[in-house]
Amino acid sequence: MSKKGSLVIISGFSGAGKGTVVKELMKNYECYALSISATTRNPRPGEENEREYFFKTKEEFEELIRQDALYEYAQYVDNYYGTPKAYVEEQLAAGKDVILEIEVQGALKVKEKNPQALLLFVTPPSAEELKHRLIDRGTETMDVINDRMRRAAEESEIMDHYQYLVINDDLDTCVKEVHQLIQSQHLKVSENLDLVADIQKELKEMKGE
Amino acid sequence: MSKKGSLVIISGFSGAGKGTVVKELMKNYECYALSISATTRNPRPGEENEREYFFKTKEEFEELIRQDALYEYAQYVDNYYGTPKAYVEEQLAAGKDVILEIEVQGALKVKEKNPQALLLFVTPPSAEELKHRLIDRGTETMDVINDRMRRAAEESEIMDHYQYLVINDDLDTCVKEVHQLIQSQHLKVSENLDLVADIQKELKEMKGE
Repeated sequence: MSKKGSLVIISGFSGAGKGTVVKELMKNYECYALSISATTRNPRPGEENEREYFFKTKEEFEELIRQDALYEYAQYVDNYYGTPKAYVEEQLAAGKDVILEIEVQGALKVKEKNPQALLLFVTPPSAEELKHRLIDRGTETMDVINDRMRRAAEESEIMDHYQYLVINDDLDTCVKEVHQLIQSQHLKVSENLDLVADIQKELKEMKGE
Repeated sequence: MSKKGSLVIISGFSGAGKGTVVKELMKNYECYALSISATTRNPRPGEENEREYFFKTKEEFEELIRQDALYEYAQYVDNYYGTPKAYVEEQLAAGKDVILEIEVQGALKVKEKNPQALLLFVTPPSAEELKHRLIDRGTETMDVINDRMRRAAEESEIMDHYQYLVINDDLDTCVKEVHQLIQSQHLKVSENLDLVADIQKELKEMKGE
């Protein structure tokens, strides 16, 4: 089947556990690579260039924008964040399924440029459960939690642009479902047009015999 | 996730082993029901009405056509064959994933009336391998084998209307892949619009609190 990797976009509400799902995927299977974002913010202690982020100066980042070398980018609090194409394309060419863990607006921009990308949305079973999880973390103030819930309400308006909805109720089940959805991509006819053409040609030649 | 069953169309070259794949699915998993065709041909010894086929008179069958009670039908050698809607719809409503093992022309007709249906095409790894399998069966004359290969060449022209291509090289792998492709249907956002709407509504109400 198709040897090229698939581009996979995973989004979800803050608190849905998508970070954990992605970590488990990377740990359990060798077929995945994680897209690395570029940013102009300063590295934090322990962060390494080309591991957590591609750290760039403002000028370098703006050069990437000019060269159309990013799938998408956005500005938050004076810093740029974006998804460099080159790293993703290298990994895809090497046969890796590349995962972009990205918020909904960025996801739609990437999908526009890559119609064949797979869009997955990770959600807890209900909004109630989402709020419980954010509260149970115990690390956020109620102000932050309410902010996240407001943000989730906004994001939920875009959920129906995604192709698949994965409910993160049991982590192992969720990871397995995401893995299967991604691997199914390789069975799509549209990803195997070379094989289809080979079989058609071979059958035509046999008929001529 | 969605409780209603999915409609699944499985096609493939004669000799690709799709019958065996379908049998294994039915044996290994409880979630499937097999669509039963209607026909005007006479029952053969051992065949039972409502098990192998819905056996109908010509008048009864033509009445089904008039009532638009078939997804598709065709005539071969003076006999009608078709897929009655009622049985499929009952099974879907009961939450079963319903499998139609059907040839390519019929498949396209069913898909037209059921755009949400999943179309799978089962194929050996190559045309060469298909011919080997037909020969190795040892039950057919070379004339019949050549007929099947010609038919395969025709069918292969329609392969790219299918969504997924499943290579039947190792039977167990093939059955597992087909099962996963079908089960993934239940995670489609388009199959879970009620859940999406619930989450959107719940989040909106919380924001209003």
